[in-house]
Amino acid sequence: MTFNDTFLRSIRKESIDHVPVWYMRQAGRYQKEYLKIKEKYSLMQICEIPDLCAEVTISPVRQHNVDAAILYSDIMIPVKPLGVNVDIVAGIGPVIDNPIRSLADVQALRPLEPDNDLPATLETIRILKKELNVPLIGFAGAPFTLASYMVEGGPSREYHKTKKMMYSQPDIWQALMDKLGDMIITYMKSQVANGCAAIQIFDSWIGALSQDDYRRYVFPTMKRIFEGLKDLGVPKIYFGANTGHLLDQWKELDIEVVGVDWRIGLDRARTIVGDKFALQGNLDPVYLLAPYDVLEAEAAKIIDQGLKQPGFVFNLGHGLFPDVPEAAVTHLTQFIHDYSKRRLSER
Amino acid sequence: MTFNDTFLRSIRKESIDHVPVWYMRQAGRYQKEYLKIKEKYSLMQICEIPDLCAEVTISPVRQHNVDAAILYSDIMIPVKPLGVNVDIVAGIGPVIDNPIRSLADVQALRPLEPDNDLPATLETIRILKKELNVPLIGFAGAPFTLASYMVEGGPSREYHKTKKMMYSQPDIWQALMDKLGDMIITYMKSQVANGCAAIQIFDSWIGALSQDDYRRYVFPTMKRIFEGLKDLGVPKIYFGANTGHLLDQWKELDIEVVGVDWRIGLDRARTIVGDKFALQGNLDPVYLLAPYDVLEAEAAKIIDQGLKQPGFVFNLGHGLFPDVPEAAVTHLTQFIHDYSKRRLSER
Repeated sequence: MTFNDTFLRSIRKESIDHVPVWYMRQAGRYQKEYLKIKEKYSLMQICEIPDLCAEVTISPVRQHNVDAAILYSDIMIPVKPLGVNVDIVAGIGPVIDNPIRSLADVQALRPLEPDNDLPATLETIRILKKELNVPLIGFAGAPFTLASYMVEGGPSREYHKTKKMMYSQPDIWQALMDKLGDMIITYMKSQVANGCAAIQIFDSWIGALSQDDYRRYVFPTMKRIFEGLKDLGVPKIYFGANTGHLLDQWKELDIEVVGVDWRIGLDRARTIVGDKFALQGNLDPVYLLAPYDVLEAEAAKIIDQGLKQPGFVFNLGHGLFPDVPEAAVTHLTQFIHDYSKRRLSER
Repeated sequence: MTFNDTFLRSIRKESIDHVPVWYMRQAGRYQKEYLKIKEKYSLMQICEIPDLCAEVTISPVRQHNVDAAILYSDIMIPVKPLGVNVDIVAGIGPVIDNPIRSLADVQALRPLEPDNDLPATLETIRILKKELNVPLIGFAGAPFTLASYMVEGGPSREYHKTKKMMYSQPDIWQALMDKLGDMIITYMKSQVANGCAAIQIFDSWIGALSQDDYRRYVFPTMKRIFEGLKDLGVPKIYFGANTGHLLDQWKELDIEVVGVDWRIGLDRARTIVGDKFALQGNLDPVYLLAPYDVLEAEAAKIIDQGLKQPGFVFNLGHGLFPDVPEAAVTHLTQFIHDYSKRRLSER
């Protein structure tokens, strides 16, 4: 089987014969096969068994013929070895019984040593590197998003405790950003050294911050992280939901790909960030519940916008969710490939 | 006591001696007095007792010296008489046991007759018109936000059912928008006829839609509503959380005031909507948990931006929440008045 590097070629703005596509949460609860595995194993347990974790990672590639795999893991996995008692509770999300409340709590976090702390994750990556015929994307959560769980003690809708710390105890906040920034740099280097061909930083909840708060409390850490990963030699993707208002700061970052959520059009995103970056996005995943003609029309619109300039990867504007029919994901993938092939061959 | 019409004067871009301010949810659970009342009465019960409802509405004006009152009510109150079995459940929000699932469900909704259906609300407004020395703001929920509860059956984070209806059954969706649009026009006319000096349409959850979906599925109804209220002779405010990406459509609406959430700066909002509108906003309410010097610096920044052009009302970018200290709200109000007086007198 030949290696399909369309995902990487498109990001590098090289010639492609179709638009590459992968989906956030493409391994997940909308898959019957995955649900069967989840009857026996928790998320954390799957991540501890490299063969199983590799299988879960590969399954959507086989099922839908997507152009990239993303490591099956969770953003909280590398946080646990720092000394954070985190559990992923089904139906809730990450729950932490020792939330960060003081400078001492931050100082007690120890540095990540991937080889010692996360051997199963690295072994999974090495297996996947051999078995996959598409690029493997590694990932980490971004500091704000990780910190929001660590400070709130679990998922939040409004991030009151997190923001209160930012505004009231900026020294503690910055110390936490520093620790998490270090962790992310170390972790990403290790993922790439073991076989990841690209990385994505998930800043899922960053959209809760104003432009000014982002600039003041988070942006310097993001800048340091991406500068620290400059020499990795793999493309770096930065994604967060609800980030249209932050994109004109993102364009100052050392990244290759801007992940766009569904709220703003790709045309608008391109207007804001310019033509330096590849774009990745941005179908509202709820369109996968729509009739196929409606789904296809929306996907075609996004492909047409994406293809206006080189550097485009089709994705959702947010992750797949349990109600999505598996057949719709396969259908969409096929449509994206066929439609974009037609459009590209017309050139 | 003289009538303080600074709120209306500022919206009309007339001369003012201070920046007017009111807060979304200024009557609410952060107030000890309100919590005492809530021990005996539910939200719905308070709304049925005009003297009590008027008292709850007035209390933040007395407590903080804000420049406008907003009717104490809930966006679901006028939905109940249409035939929707809605209850406001403490700690959850509106819960509906007969959600909208079909065209027949929509057709079964009957028109609102405010005099018959909501006599307590109108009596409350008449009492307030006599007792208040500041303008009274009436309000309604916007069609998308109301529909999201009616279709989901309760609060939602992702609005899957609502969007699925939009995408899959656009005729049912439009019929629902039409019914709710009619209700809102009728309700707002009645509120103004009974004494409201301004109205605000809350589209709390509209930020979940993409620009294109908003344009297709919601904007025509918003256009019809505000055109239907053109001759009311009172200023119309439109607010939704997380709406930076929608503002350049909002500028096509017959409104006088654009409510801005905290994510984008007022400068940016003005760049998008132009100088036709007054702006209202946009402090992240979590700043009320910060030390006063941090709170004041942020408020001063917003006032400086707001005063760059005539037409500004200080507000939060979202509602007050239970953890906010009452004293911080009083302090902020005083600061806004003092600081803006100084800035205005320097001109």
